[in-house]
Amino acid sequence: MLKLVSSRLFDRLVLQSVRCSCEKSIDMAKDNLTAVLHGIEDMRLEQRPIPQIADDEVLIAMDSVGICGSDVHYLAHGRIGDFILTKPMVIGHESSGVVTKLGKKVTNVKVGDRVAIEPGVPCRYCDHCKQGKYNLCPGMVFCATPPYDGNLTRFYKHPADFCFKLPDHVSMEEGALLEPLSVGVHACRRAEVTLGSKVIILGAGPIGLVTLLAAQAMGASEILITDLLQQRLDVAKELGATHTLLLKKDQSAEETAKLVRETMCGEPDKAIDCCGAESSARLAIFATRSGGVVVIVGMGAPEVKLPIINALAREVDIRGVFRYCNDYASALALVSSGKVNVKRLVTHHFDIKDTDKAFETARKGLGGAIKVMIHVQPRDANNPRKF
Amino acid sequence: MLKLVSSRLFDRLVLQSVRCSCEKSIDMAKDNLTAVLHGIEDMRLEQRPIPQIADDEVLIAMDSVGICGSDVHYLAHGRIGDFILTKPMVIGHESSGVVTKLGKKVTNVKVGDRVAIEPGVPCRYCDHCKQGKYNLCPGMVFCATPPYDGNLTRFYKHPADFCFKLPDHVSMEEGALLEPLSVGVHACRRAEVTLGSKVIILGAGPIGLVTLLAAQAMGASEILITDLLQQRLDVAKELGATHTLLLKKDQSAEETAKLVRETMCGEPDKAIDCCGAESSARLAIFATRSGGVVVIVGMGAPEVKLPIINALAREVDIRGVFRYCNDYASALALVSSGKVNVKRLVTHHFDIKDTDKAFETARKGLGGAIKVMIHVQPRDANNPRKF
Amino acid sequence: MLKLVSSRLFDRLVLQSVRCSCEKSIDMAKDNLTAVLHGIEDMRLEQRPIPQIADDEVLIAMDSVGICGSDVHYLAHGRIGDFILTKPMVIGHESSGVVTKLGKKVTNVKVGDRVAIEPGVPCRYCDHCKQGKYNLCPGMVFCATPPYDGNLTRFYKHPADFCFKLPDHVSMEEGALLEPLSVGVHACRRAEVTLGSKVIILGAGPIGLVTLLAAQAMGASEILITDLLQQRLDVAKELGATHTLLLKKDQSAEETAKLVRETMCGEPDKAIDCCGAESSARLAIFATRSGGVVVIVGMGAPEVKLPIINALAREVDIRGVFRYCNDYASALALVSSGKVNVKRLVTHHFDIKDTDKAFETARKGLGGAIKVMIHVQPRDANNPRKF
Amino acid sequence: MLKLVSSRLFDRLVLQSVRCSCEKSIDMAKDNLTAVLHGIEDMRLEQRPIPQIADDEVLIAMDSVGICGSDVHYLAHGRIGDFILTKPMVIGHESSGVVTKLGKKVTNVKVGDRVAIEPGVPCRYCDHCKQGKYNLCPGMVFCATPPYDGNLTRFYKHPADFCFKLPDHVSMEEGALLEPLSVGVHACRRAEVTLGSKVIILGAGPIGLVTLLAAQAMGASEILITDLLQQRLDVAKELGATHTLLLKKDQSAEETAKLVRETMCGEPDKAIDCCGAESSARLAIFATRSGGVVVIVGMGAPEVKLPIINALAREVDIRGVFRYCNDYASALALVSSGKVNVKRLVTHHFDIKDTDKAFETARKGLGGAIKVMIHVQPRDANNPRKF
Repeated sequence: MLKLVSSRLFDRLVLQSVRCSCEKSIDMAKDNLTAVLHGIEDMRLEQRPIPQIADDEVLIAMDSVGICGSDVHYLAHGRIGDFILTKPMVIGHESSGVVTKLGKKVTNVKVGDRVAIEPGVPCRYCDHCKQGKYNLCPGMVFCATPPYDGNLTRFYKHPADFCFKLPDHVSMEEGALLEPLSVGVHACRRAEVTLGSKVIILGAGPIGLVTLLAAQAMGASEILITDLLQQRLDVAKELGATHTLLLKKDQSAEETAKLVRETMCGEPDKAIDCCGAESSARLAIFATRSGGVVVIVGMGAPEVKLPIINALAREVDIRGVFRYCNDYASALALVSSGKVNVKRLVTHHFDIKDTDKAFETARKGLGGAIKVMIHVQPRDANNPRKF
Repeated sequence: MLKLVSSRLFDRLVLQSVRCSCEKSIDMAKDNLTAVLHGIEDMRLEQRPIPQIADDEVLIAMDSVGICGSDVHYLAHGRIGDFILTKPMVIGHESSGVVTKLGKKVTNVKVGDRVAIEPGVPCRYCDHCKQGKYNLCPGMVFCATPPYDGNLTRFYKHPADFCFKLPDHVSMEEGALLEPLSVGVHACRRAEVTLGSKVIILGAGPIGLVTLLAAQAMGASEILITDLLQQRLDVAKELGATHTLLLKKDQSAEETAKLVRETMCGEPDKAIDCCGAESSARLAIFATRSGGVVVIVGMGAPEVKLPIINALAREVDIRGVFRYCNDYASALALVSSGKVNVKRLVTHHFDIKDTDKAFETARKGLGGAIKVMIHVQPRDANNPRKF
Repeated sequence: MLKLVSSRLFDRLVLQSVRCSCEKSIDMAKDNLTAVLHGIEDMRLEQRPIPQIADDEVLIAMDSVGICGSDVHYLAHGRIGDFILTKPMVIGHESSGVVTKLGKKVTNVKVGDRVAIEPGVPCRYCDHCKQGKYNLCPGMVFCATPPYDGNLTRFYKHPADFCFKLPDHVSMEEGALLEPLSVGVHACRRAEVTLGSKVIILGAGPIGLVTLLAAQAMGASEILITDLLQQRLDVAKELGATHTLLLKKDQSAEETAKLVRETMCGEPDKAIDCCGAESSARLAIFATRSGGVVVIVGMGAPEVKLPIINALAREVDIRGVFRYCNDYASALALVSSGKVNVKRLVTHHFDIKDTDKAFETARKGLGGAIKVMIHVQPRDANNPRKF
Repeated sequence: MLKLVSSRLFDRLVLQSVRCSCEKSIDMAKDNLTAVLHGIEDMRLEQRPIPQIADDEVLIAMDSVGICGSDVHYLAHGRIGDFILTKPMVIGHESSGVVTKLGKKVTNVKVGDRVAIEPGVPCRYCDHCKQGKYNLCPGMVFCATPPYDGNLTRFYKHPADFCFKLPDHVSMEEGALLEPLSVGVHACRRAEVTLGSKVIILGAGPIGLVTLLAAQAMGASEILITDLLQQRLDVAKELGATHTLLLKKDQSAEETAKLVRETMCGEPDKAIDCCGAESSARLAIFATRSGGVVVIVGMGAPEVKLPIINALAREVDIRGVFRYCNDYASALALVSSGKVNVKRLVTHHFDIKDTDKAFETARKGLGGAIKVMIHVQPRDANNPRKF
C-alpha cells in the first residue's frame, strides 16, 4: 500500500533520519520524510522541502502523530463527504512536536518548547471567527483535509498561536491525543454536560472514550456507554463509565431506550452519539429526558430517518459537533492536571517508516487497536518522563 | 356535526343566555352552556354544572374563545399523537373572560377584571416545574387536551396565577389571541431571535403569522416567509414580512434554499418551521447559516427523513417547540404596547350557539379564514373599546 | 446560654429521648424536644407539639443537623440584615432525617427513607418560581430564617418534593452537609465554573471549602484558595486546592492580585468570595481576568467601596449568591458518586441535649472546628455504614 | 484652541480640499488635512501623509466624523483613565467614508462603496479574539485612543473587514452614528434586554438615547429614562421612551427607586446606567427587580460606594460595557431597516476646517447639542438622498 519513490533514496533518507534523531547536531534540514496520500490505497513516503515560516509561524520538528478514523477513511475512499482528494496530500493531524524556529512576531513559545498542535487554522476575518465559532469558518485550513496538507512529516510549519506548550510531565503522545480529546470536550460542551448530568454515550471507540473522559471531568454523575463489542465496553468501564450496555444489532431503539432508563437512576438528560449510525441516533432521541440534549458527533449517511416528533414535542434538542473551538487549552488542562488519563487509549506504536503497517493496524483494529501512534522521532526522545 | 341534547332544552338555554349577557343581574348560575366534543365529528352543546373554585382559583365568565388547529384536529380525528379522546371533553383553549369570583388566597386579580387565560397548569412540584420549564411537566393539565376539559363554556374555573389582567385598551379577542401569540413568542425564544437576526419562517398560517409578529418585535432585521398560497403571503407582507416566497409542491429543498439565500441579504441564521411537513423541515436545514438554529413548531409525521449530516456538520441546531412557558406576560406586553397588531388575524366571529358553523369555517378555511373567534358573550360586551 | 424550661421536666424528656432512639418501638409521639432561639444569647430546649402533615408533606424523625454561621449569628445578634427575630424560633436548617409518615399525595419517598432536607420552600406561584429561580421567591419559607421555624427538633414536617432520598452508602451527616454543599454548587454555577476554569476562592471556611469541592467537580483545572489562617489553608490543600495563599491583614488588593496571577499559571477567570469582607471583594475584582466573573457569596457590610471601574471596563461581571436553587440533587450526586468527600468537614459531634456546647464550639471555632454536627438520634443509628 | 500650522499653507489646502470634493478627478493625494490633538487644549489642523495600505486594508476618503464625549475629554484633560496622550494623536472615531483603494486580499467591499468604520481592530490572535470577545483584546488598536491615531482626516486606511457597506438609503451621517449606536446595542445585549423587558435607562445624553433606541428594537415593553434636564427627557420621549423621570440632585436613591417602580407597571428587570455617577449606579441597583441585571456603561470615579449587599442578596448582576463586539452589523441593520431613527440625534454640522467650533459646541452643549457632526466632505456629497 505504501510505495517508495525510490528504494535507494529511501534508504539514504532513513539513515539520515536515524542519525538525525540520535545526534541532533547534524544538518537535519536535508531530511523531511513525509507521508503523502496520493490516492485511494496509495500512501507514499517522500521527501518534501522544509517549509519557510511566516512572521506569526513556528517551524516544528514533528514527534508523535496519531492515526484518526478520518485518515483511514481518506486512504480507503479518497474522500469524506464533500472533501475530495484531488491531488497528493500529506496525511496526519493528531500531532505534537518540538519548536525549532520562530517567526519574528512569535512570543508565546520559544525554540525547544514541546507543543501540541491544534491542526485547524481559521481565516481570522469572517463573522464566525469574530464571534468565537472559528470551527465554522469557511476559510479554515485544516491539516489533512483536502486540499490542505497534514503533518505526518519531519518538519512542519504552523501559526504559533495554535501551538500549545506542554509541561514537562505531559508526554508527546499525550500532546498528540489532545486532538481527539478536544473533540470529546467540544461534544460535552455542545451537550452542556455539567454537575450532576446523566449522560449516555453511544459507541465506545476512541471518540466515545474521550467523550467519556471529558464528561467525567465536567461533573457528570452517571455515564452509561453502549457498544456492540464487549471488549470496548471493558475499556470504557476501566476508564470510569458507571454503566455499560452491550447492544445487539436488531434491538428496537424504543426497547433499548427503556433498558437505558432502567439501568441508570432515571432518564439521561444528555446523549452523545459517537457512532454515526441511524440506529444510535434513534436510541439517543428515545432515551433522552424531556428538555435534554442529543449531540451527534458524526454521521455516516447524508440522510437519516429520525423519530423527530418525539424529540420536538419533548424539546429534546439535536446538535452536531464539527471539530472543536477554543477547546485545546481545556483538553491540555485536563491531561496536565491529571484529571483524565488518556494513556490507556494508545495501544500501538510505529515509526514513521512503518506508516503502512500503522495504518493497517488502525484500519483493521488489529490487536485490539484503539489509538495507533506514529513516531517521527524515536519514542521518548522528547519525553522527560517515559510515556 | 353539532348535536343538541334536546332542542327544547337548548332554546331555553339560549334564551337564558341572551338574557344573561344583556341583563347581567339575573341569576347566571343556572346557565353554563358548554361545547363538548363527544367523539369524532360529534360536538354537542350541553349544560354543565358551574364549577366550585379552590382557594387559589377564580371563576371566570368566559368571553372569547378562538379555534385552534388542534381543536379542529380532535373534532376530525379524535386524537393528536398519544393524546386520545376517550370520553367527552369540553373543547377550547384560546380564551379570555371576566373574573366573577375569587378563591380565598387570590390576590393578583379581582372580581370584574378582564383576563386572558393561559390554558395549561403544571403540577408545580416536579423538576421541570422547579427548573422553569413547566411546559415539559408530565403532570400538566391543559385545556382541551384529553383527558382535560377546555373552556368553550360560560363559566370556567382556573388558577388565578395563570390569568393575566388585560388593560382597558386590550380587547377580549386580543386576550384570546395571546395563546397563539405565546406560541410564536416561545418559538422565537427557542430560536434565539435577536437584534439583527435574519429569519426564515416556513408557513404563513396563523402560527407562522404570530411567529412573524414576535420575530419583528424581538429585533429581526429581515424576515422571509414562505407558503404555497399567495393570499397567505399577502397577509404576511401586510403584517411586515420583508420578503415572501411562494413555494411550489415539487421544488427541491436545496434549490429553494439557494433561492432563499439570494432573496435575503445573506443567509438566514434562524429558520422557524410552522408547517410540519418533511419538505419544509428539509428546506429549513438547507437554508440556515452554519451555527444557526432551526426551530420546528409542529410536525405531522412521527418519523421524517432529514438531511441531518448537513445540519450536524455545520452545527445548525434543531429544536422543537412544545406550547410555551413564561411567555404569556411577554405576549400581553407586545399587544398592550402596540408593538404588534394581532387584530388582522381575526377574520370571523360566531356566537357560542353557532359553534358548529365556527368549526366548519375554521376547518375549511372558508372566506379566507385565518382565526375564527367564538363569542360566549355578545361581541364587545366586555370591551371598553370596540374590537 | 441555654436555658431549660424546667430541669425536672428536662430530665424526664432526656430520658424519654434516649429511650426513644434506642428502642424505637415506644411511643415517640410524646417527645418532640426542640432547640428554640428566644432571643439574643437565649437558646432553650423545649417540648413542641408534633406537627400535623398536609397532603404533600412528610413527617420526618430528624437525625443530623449541622450548625451554620447564620445560626450562630442569630444567637449572637438576633438578626441578619432585614431578617429580625421577633418571636421564639426553632433553630437549624442543615439537616437530614428519616421519613415516618406520608401525606396522601406523596409518591417520591416512602416511610423509612433516609432523606436530606432542602430547607427552603417557595410559594410555587410567583414569576420567580415559574422561571426556575425559586430562591428569589418573596414568599419563601426558609427554616430558621425569621419568622419561620427551623428543624433542630425530633419531629419535623416538610413538603416531600424538597426531601431527597439518600442511598444506603450516604450517611445522615453527609445528608445534612448537602445544604452547605448546595451553596458551593450554586456559587460555582453562578460563576459558570467549567472545564479548564482557573478559580480563586477567597476564604477557606466551610463555605470556601464546599465551593472548592464543587469547583473541582465541575472541571476547574486550577484552584487557588486564600485565607488569613494557615490551618484552614492546610485543610483546603488536603481537599485538593492546587494553590494556597496566606493573606495578611494589611496587604494591598492590587499587590495581592499580582501575587495571585504569578502563583497561578495565568489569570484566574473566576473569583468566588466566601469571606464577605470589603478587602476580599476588592482582591477578587483586581485578580480576575477580563471577561471573567466575580461571585460574592456573602457580604458583611451593606455598603462597600469597590474599584468598580476596574471591573466594568474589563467586563468582569459581579454576581451575588442567594442560597441555592435546583442544586440539591447535584450536591447529592456529587457525594453519592464519590466525586467529593465532605466527611473531612465535620470536626465535632454533639447530642441535641448539648446544643449549647455545640453552638459554643462552632462560635469560637474551638478545637479547629469546621463543621459542628448535632445529632437528634444517637450517632450512626440511621447509617448502614458508620460515618 | 485650534492652531494652524501656517495660514497660507492652510488656505492652499482648503482650496485644494474644496476642489477635491467637487471635481474628484484631480490629484487628491496631496491633501490630507487632519485634526491632530497635540495636548490639552491643543488641537491643530495639519497635513499628514496619505497612508499606504496593506493587503487586508482599504484606503478611505473620510466623509463624516461625529464628536464623542471621549474626544472632548481628551481635548480637555489629555487622558481618560490609564489612556494618556503622550504624543500628538489624530482625533475622531465615529466615522464613515468612501472606499478609494483596495488591498490585494480585500473582497468584501469595492472602490466607491460608502462604508461605516468600526474603529477598533483587535489582534486576531489572543484568547479573547478567538472566544468572540475581541473588545477585551489587550492588543486592540482603537482610533483616537492613545497611542493610536483616529480618523478625522481626509484619507485613512483601515482593515476591510471592519468596514460595513452602507445601502444607498443610509446616509454617511447615519454611518458615523453606528458607532455610538453600537455602544447602545452592546449595552442592551449585556443587559439581556428581550421581549417584554422593563428597562430603566439612567441618563438621556447621546449614549442614553441610543440605548433607548436599541432597547426598543430588542422588544422592551416599557422604558423609563431619567435625567436632570427636562429638555433631554423631551427628546427621549420623542424617541419613544414610555416614561420619563426628572431627577433632582439630592434625591435619595431608595426613594427614587420607589418612584421608578410606581411609575412603571412593576419593577424594571434591567437597568442601564449611562451617567457614570455614583448616585445613578445606586439608583440602578435599588430599582432593579430581584434576579435582574444592572449594566453600567461608563463610570466617572475609579472607586464608588455601592449598596452591594442589596444587589448580591437579590442576585441582581452588575455588568460593565467596554465598547462593543460584533454589534456593528446589528446597528446597521437597525438603521437600514428603519427600525430606529438616529437622525434626531444630530443637532449640529461643521466642516473639518471648523473643527474647533465643532468641539466647542459639543463641549458646552451649545444650542441643545446632542451629536455634533464634522464633515470632511461637503454635506451630502456622498448621500444619494439628502440627510
